[in-house]
Amino acid sequence: MNIRIPRGTQDILPGKVEQWQYIEEKARDLCRRYNYKEIRTPVFEQTELFQRGVGDTTDIVQKEMYTFEDRGGRSLTLRPEGTASVARSYVENKMHGEAQQPTKLFYIGPMFRYERPQSGRMRQFVQFGVEAIGSADPAVDAEVIALAMDYYSELGLKGLKLVINSLGDKESREAHRQALIDHFQPRINEFCSDCQERLEKNPLRILDCKKDADHELMKTAPSILDYLNEESTAYFEKVKFLLDQMGVSYEVDPALVRGLDYYNNTAFEIMIEGKGFGAITTLSGGGRYNGLVEELGGPESPGIGFALSLERLLMALEAQEINLEIKESIDCYLVAMGEKAKDKAAVLLYELRKEGLTADKDYIDRKPKGQFKSADRLKARYTAILGENELEAEKINVKHMETGEQKEIALSDFITYMKENMEESI
Amino acid sequence: MNIRIPRGTQDILPGKVEQWQYIEEKARDLCRRYNYKEIRTPVFEQTELFQRGVGDTTDIVQKEMYTFEDRGGRSLTLRPEGTASVARSYVENKMHGEAQQPTKLFYIGPMFRYERPQSGRMRQFVQFGVEAIGSADPAVDAEVIALAMDYYSELGLKGLKLVINSLGDKESREAHRQALIDHFQPRINEFCSDCQERLEKNPLRILDCKKDADHELMKTAPSILDYLNEESTAYFEKVKFLLDQMGVSYEVDPALVRGLDYYNNTAFEIMIEGKGFGAITTLSGGGRYNGLVEELGGPESPGIGFALSLERLLMALEAQEINLEIKESIDCYLVAMGEKAKDKAAVLLYELRKEGLTADKDYIDRKPKGQFKSADRLKARYTAILGENELEAEKINVKHMETGEQKEIALSDFITYMKENMEESI
Repeated sequence: MNIRIPRGTQDILPGKVEQWQYIEEKARDLCRRYNYKEIRTPVFEQTELFQRGVGDTTDIVQKEMYTFEDRGGRSLTLRPEGTASVARSYVENKMHGEAQQPTKLFYIGPMFRYERPQSGRMRQFVQFGVEAIGSADPAVDAEVIALAMDYYSELGLKGLKLVINSLGDKESREAHRQALIDHFQPRINEFCSDCQERLEKNPLRILDCKKDADHELMKTAPSILDYLNEESTAYFEKVKFLLDQMGVSYEVDPALVRGLDYYNNTAFEIMIEGKGFGAITTLSGGGRYNGLVEELGGPESPGIGFALSLERLLMALEAQEINLEIKESIDCYLVAMGEKAKDKAAVLLYELRKEGLTADKDYIDRKPKGQFKSADRLKARYTAILGENELEAEKINVKHMETGEQKEIALSDFITYMKENMEESI
Repeated sequence: MNIRIPRGTQDILPGKVEQWQYIEEKARDLCRRYNYKEIRTPVFEQTELFQRGVGDTTDIVQKEMYTFEDRGGRSLTLRPEGTASVARSYVENKMHGEAQQPTKLFYIGPMFRYERPQSGRMRQFVQFGVEAIGSADPAVDAEVIALAMDYYSELGLKGLKLVINSLGDKESREAHRQALIDHFQPRINEFCSDCQERLEKNPLRILDCKKDADHELMKTAPSILDYLNEESTAYFEKVKFLLDQMGVSYEVDPALVRGLDYYNNTAFEIMIEGKGFGAITTLSGGGRYNGLVEELGGPESPGIGFALSLERLLMALEAQEINLEIKESIDCYLVAMGEKAKDKAAVLLYELRKEGLTADKDYIDRKPKGQFKSADRLKARYTAILGENELEAEKINVKHMETGEQKEIALSDFITYMKENMEESI
């Protein structure tokens, strides 16, 4: 039996990979403009990093991690997300000591979660994420949100919806937490066992529960926005003001929460209106985490970031039938007949490529007809024909495929001729 | 205690990551010109793939793999190299059935080997590799070798040495194998226990043994080149002829071998002359494998490829003090004074970035002096200054940092002005 690809993973092949290259290039270009620099952390980390940085009680850590021991007995885990690794690197490399602050970073790379594979949810998937660490200025929140929105809109997606909320600072959250406990306590026995556990540990996460989503107490639960203190209110107002000024539309949804203790103030999600997605409507999520760096042993360093799945983005682009501008053609295909001409063609090819042209030839002894078919398949802009006669006369026949125009050129001029033609047509 | 990065892995941080981006971009550009398309396979595969595709008796499979069971009890392994995955994908996706042959692929991605970490040898490292599957034309061998050499030489490396050899076809190798057994058999007890085992299993690998490298029988061992049959000789002559015609210099080294059974005909390595490298002199290796695809259950599909470590490449560039052309500047830094000006600056920034400029501002309440320092640190080409007075007058002060020239511009013209200045200076 043949060996198959592991379940929940995929090969990205030519024909599809160009879309990946395109959206990654767009992400890099956007980060260049916003002055975010790339960081690359290892694919695996010490397991403890995610237990502390993602949270011991989360589904990710409890059920979905690829954890294993290496040959030295260390417990390692394939990263399930990017933020914990970036924060670990920030602390370990003492980036907080660098003059330029905040530290603005982005990453693009594979993440791993052992989930039931389904449409848009793979066990290995690719995330693009951004983290700005070292500033508590609401203008950074607006910048990060704008970057995420720009990414989708510049790729041409329609029907985007930005949802924002504030989780407040510690004081505000504490007041809200108590209000939630008071709200749910009297009827907590009507909720699922997970929620009963959450009541004391993290009542905010009750609002996220799918099982109890329809319980009447969910709708009447106290909103964080009613418990924001003056400082948190001013912070949230400034974020909204800046987004307004930038012309980035949003909705405020007080039900938008993040489960982890160190999330605070701004939280946001980018959704897309449904057609063709089935259940998938959230494209991206992010928020402010002012305690994560401290949790990992660093100094107080407020941060904000987002992460998004490139697989979901591609699904959204496909659902909206958006064609990315992908160059599919090659510059020149060499058709050669006879062994000597073939040898010469191999050398000409080498020289064309040295000059920057995308060029190819036959390598499986196709007859001329088959070679011309190859040229068509590869969408060659020029086909250059070299037979024994041409070779003897030191000429080559160059055909412009779109116009059909054909020219005989001295072999010694061929490379220069092709190079000049390419420069003109760029 | 803080959580540290796993042993043998590294963070690639801003300041260094630009070099990675540069050499990866160069690899992509070269592959575009040679018409090789990117393939991305998962980071892990079923363990059996590497047992069969890399070889059960190799050090990699026996000692160096990161193998683990997933939560479903499947044995998975972080890929230690790229060729087996590409061949698996070629078979699984029936690429042999596609009209365009050979299938020309490249990959850039992390690989994993549990080795003793040392300079230039990491447990997670990045390989750039190329595979051309589906043709037994020696012109493909020359193309693949030329691509690898071009990569290093276009990056500016000096002192490169290309070493090639032929391992012959099956018949030639069988004759050579018997000659090797006859050569070593009488004195095999003077060799290490590994070599004693190799004698019957794979006597070619004795020539690779580091322990017995100085034994006198090593020097007098029969050369494969004396056992090549007519076909293999003609094949090797054609590869050399094409390299000669292309002007790619090489040395033939009959001692260059590849340990796996399905390697045949062309083998090559690219070395670099030593200064500053310590033990590291081989940059890249590759060769023809005409049986791998069949080993993995596909039809007969001759292939050739190479792989190289980007870490080693960067070490070589560093040792030769080669500076890659990396853009470090930003286009515009906004200096703002007073809360209203800061808010306005955040919006202007957003608009500059929309127009494609790399732009930034302060986010940690620095005084003007500190903001100017930031602008210098980021090598801003322009600094735009916005205070309360300017804001009231609806003006902004733009300074060209190189010339010192300063101009007051209407706020409403600022974005257009900056955009035009950038276009001129590109």
